[in-house]
Amino acid sequence: MEGTMKCSANYIPLSPISFLERSAIVYGDYTSVVYGDLKYTWKETRERCVRLASALAQLGISGGDVVAALAPNIPALYELHFGVPMAGAILCPLNVRYDSVMVSILLRNSDAKVIFVDYQLLHVANGAFELLSKLKAKLPFMVVIQEVSKPTANDNIKNSKVVFGNLEYENLLKTGKPGFEVRKPKDETDPISISYTSGTTGSPKGVVYNHRGAYLNALAEILHNAMSPKSVYLWTVPMFHCNGWCLPWGMAALGGTNVCLRNVSAKTIYENLSRHNVTHMGGAPTILNMIVNASAAERKPLNSKVEVMTGGAPPPPNVLLKMEELSFGVTHSYGMTEVYGPGTFCSWKPEWDSLPPNEKAKIKSRQGLHHVLMEELAVKDPVTMKSVPSDGETMGEVMFRGNTVMCGYLKNLKATKEVFNGGWYRTGDIGVRHSDGYISLKDRSKDIVVCDGKNVSTIEVESVLFYHPAILEAAVVGRPDDHLGETPCAFVKLKEGFNANAEDIIRYCRENLASYMAPRTVVFEDLPKTSTGKTQKYVLRERAEAMGSLTKKMRSKI
Amino acid sequence: MEGTMKCSANYIPLSPISFLERSAIVYGDYTSVVYGDLKYTWKETRERCVRLASALAQLGISGGDVVAALAPNIPALYELHFGVPMAGAILCPLNVRYDSVMVSILLRNSDAKVIFVDYQLLHVANGAFELLSKLKAKLPFMVVIQEVSKPTANDNIKNSKVVFGNLEYENLLKTGKPGFEVRKPKDETDPISISYTSGTTGSPKGVVYNHRGAYLNALAEILHNAMSPKSVYLWTVPMFHCNGWCLPWGMAALGGTNVCLRNVSAKTIYENLSRHNVTHMGGAPTILNMIVNASAAERKPLNSKVEVMTGGAPPPPNVLLKMEELSFGVTHSYGMTEVYGPGTFCSWKPEWDSLPPNEKAKIKSRQGLHHVLMEELAVKDPVTMKSVPSDGETMGEVMFRGNTVMCGYLKNLKATKEVFNGGWYRTGDIGVRHSDGYISLKDRSKDIVVCDGKNVSTIEVESVLFYHPAILEAAVVGRPDDHLGETPCAFVKLKEGFNANAEDIIRYCRENLASYMAPRTVVFEDLPKTSTGKTQKYVLRERAEAMGSLTKKMRSKI
Repeated sequence: MEGTMKCSANYIPLSPISFLERSAIVYGDYTSVVYGDLKYTWKETRERCVRLASALAQLGISGGDVVAALAPNIPALYELHFGVPMAGAILCPLNVRYDSVMVSILLRNSDAKVIFVDYQLLHVANGAFELLSKLKAKLPFMVVIQEVSKPTANDNIKNSKVVFGNLEYENLLKTGKPGFEVRKPKDETDPISISYTSGTTGSPKGVVYNHRGAYLNALAEILHNAMSPKSVYLWTVPMFHCNGWCLPWGMAALGGTNVCLRNVSAKTIYENLSRHNVTHMGGAPTILNMIVNASAAERKPLNSKVEVMTGGAPPPPNVLLKMEELSFGVTHSYGMTEVYGPGTFCSWKPEWDSLPPNEKAKIKSRQGLHHVLMEELAVKDPVTMKSVPSDGETMGEVMFRGNTVMCGYLKNLKATKEVFNGGWYRTGDIGVRHSDGYISLKDRSKDIVVCDGKNVSTIEVESVLFYHPAILEAAVVGRPDDHLGETPCAFVKLKEGFNANAEDIIRYCRENLASYMAPRTVVFEDLPKTSTGKTQKYVLRERAEAMGSLTKKMRSKI
Repeated sequence: MEGTMKCSANYIPLSPISFLERSAIVYGDYTSVVYGDLKYTWKETRERCVRLASALAQLGISGGDVVAALAPNIPALYELHFGVPMAGAILCPLNVRYDSVMVSILLRNSDAKVIFVDYQLLHVANGAFELLSKLKAKLPFMVVIQEVSKPTANDNIKNSKVVFGNLEYENLLKTGKPGFEVRKPKDETDPISISYTSGTTGSPKGVVYNHRGAYLNALAEILHNAMSPKSVYLWTVPMFHCNGWCLPWGMAALGGTNVCLRNVSAKTIYENLSRHNVTHMGGAPTILNMIVNASAAERKPLNSKVEVMTGGAPPPPNVLLKMEELSFGVTHSYGMTEVYGPGTFCSWKPEWDSLPPNEKAKIKSRQGLHHVLMEELAVKDPVTMKSVPSDGETMGEVMFRGNTVMCGYLKNLKATKEVFNGGWYRTGDIGVRHSDGYISLKDRSKDIVVCDGKNVSTIEVESVLFYHPAILEAAVVGRPDDHLGETPCAFVKLKEGFNANAEDIIRYCRENLASYMAPRTVVFEDLPKTSTGKTQKYVLRERAEAMGSLTKKMRSKI
């Protein structure tokens, strides 16, 4: 337009680096990060991140290089979320449950130049390095992160100061210059991180995020959770998982406080909630389970209501009920690594306040609607791409489009093109849309059980199982059947001190579900989980397949 | 990066149009706009805006065309903020205080193809059209907006239905198609609006905003004011002024409620606050003055605390004090048309809670720090571009850079280049930076009075004058002086029923200020104001110049 111009005064590539730069000015003396007795201010966090960026540059890291990390939710991993992008590089935080084989594969896939390793995971990284050496692959620099408060009390790495020298995290930071000129992205669609998918499908894919998406998703998170500079966030969601739903960046935008947490358990959660006056936290339903099933000895009184964002799997209604009773507020969000974590929020509407608690919990376990910075959410026929009617019944594939959808899968354009086919991100989840616009998931398209030609939503069966008084955890998959194609098979973990047999549970399901949906087989065992607390259904599916077809005789018996 | 791709699934140009699209789904049945007895839901507002866009397209409006508006804060002006961009066009809301001459100039400058005119301002628009006709300029279409609730009780436009036909707002909407395909911007830096500066400097310049800046600034507003979908916003800030600080778009992002208001007075403010359970409002200090000086008959009890964003001029500390007493929360923000309205917020810090009320009010009247989506704020020497020290004393020019800085001045590249010289937007305001980073304005660079070689901050003198019990409003400018160069000259309006003479006021100032800062002349009169409530200092400066030099004799007397 005549008279206008684009210049550094009015156009700056969006990047979460800006959030930290601002918080160091606006909230300079406020607490940024707490970890046990350790405390940093925003001014200090910025300085540490700039030193980190400078040190990385001195190690030869330049624009577009990948820096990996293998660490739990400790301050160093928080700092890497800024220090790495400030060096112009791309952060690749790895799942702490991976073994050496997987780590070696992902280091090669990501072509990481440096890896930061927490001292407790050193054996995993060393194992990966050995494998890489055998393959004559180039090894990245390894920087070891010791426990800041007690670096010498560490069995894994005796005499570490001598061994690691400047390749020890705190020493490395000291070599960095606080006056280093931060490298901001030239283009806001430059990559900022790679998150490998959590492994529910078996083979992790490297999901690439960019600065623009990270910036916008961080804002969406703080907006939807009504967070403020006074918010105190407990790190129960792993930062290696979708970059902790982008909240390392969101907390810097706010100038709030991060409470880091190495080991997540009922005890450590309650301890930290109480000690640091936590206002917000997040986690998969397993975390909610931990909270509601904590023993009296593990519990501590809360100073104020704690708002919990849950996601990763639909929270069972009865767990939601118990959370409310303990005066936690729960908001259910739904998403996946490909949409920077949460893509929808099941926002509460005042007209639901007067519903009975049971109904409330059911509504809360819906997936809701896309957040304010996600452009569109749709439930479509995956072939015709026509939206399903808002009748709460017709199933379709859930799809997203927006700036908080990933750039694609690293080095896997085929997979990228597949999920973006038709100009939408196809989640592979099957859902319905209700008359008020909210969506509910029915299943992963590959999880749905087709029994005698009828679709059985395993999520629906699982919610019923969760209401059974003896059941702690449950997952349903299809078991091959010569006659019916598949039959629902439930894997169940009972609560301590409770008893129930397969017949009891099947009868219970028949009383509460259409009979074709009730499981025909019940297996009692611990459920295999990803490190983010999701049940690994593909493992259960393999087991169910190994069981083979349910014989006619057995079927008639139950 | 290998494996990634940019497509419609993961890149959508940022535009506030998306906010309305989403609210129509997420908050479809919630109240979007209230105006007296009239109420719309978000679904209805979206449909009205789409019809408006469609009708504009049918009038021949296409991408990049300008659509002007001359209307107070009525629902139609709210709808134009979406309907015009949805037609691919650029909204140019004009100041309702402009006369026909100014309107004719700005219609030519903006090359508007359509103008929407409120029935009460028809005479202004008609006058402008006559002037344009005389110049043989092409006339835009004129669409008249009648009072929806009583279109026939309108003296200005009798038999309007007959006269205007489809060029009457509601009739025009009826011609629009609800299925019209909304025209979203191809590039997010495409212009969305033109706001003419409010005229404190005499000659309005057309400030161009783009979709990206409008989107981001809308988010900044709702974040800093901790607004939620439950927020109810009273429209006391004119929407023609920096697009109402981008809140027409921000309210759609929230799904909150807009309370429209044709006439702003103490009575209508209190009435609407009480009737609609307003939670937020905004306004220049004149609006705060209206509230605190309202008569007992005009006041109504508030149902809950009302958060007020004030800006446009530093709020006098004693007005802030009184607002708090009436249980309004006040946040001071500072900015200008060129930064989409507010560029800084004086965010409150908990450590200030224990200060005496007087000190609190002083801190609140600081300009604070840049908001989370503005990239940088600096106080710099305008020649060397070096930042001033954070000593609270050294003055420099306040400068901004970020995505919420305008694209430039319409058809005035020279002026654009001038204010962007050095890669920063130069505000022309003189300020200092305190040790905590917060800035305080000292003056507009052209307002500062240089008396006997010393800089007198007129803002400092004005804050002292505001504490005088008899003074309602005050403004200080320089009066030419043969010996001292300039002397401070105060224009003062007294409160009703109060008395004070020039000597009293000058003595009061000498007791509370360094004596060289005290006014040497005091003039009693109503202050000339822009329609946004800012004092027109250039008018007062002309008057002070007309008074000529203060004689030596007079000077010695006081």
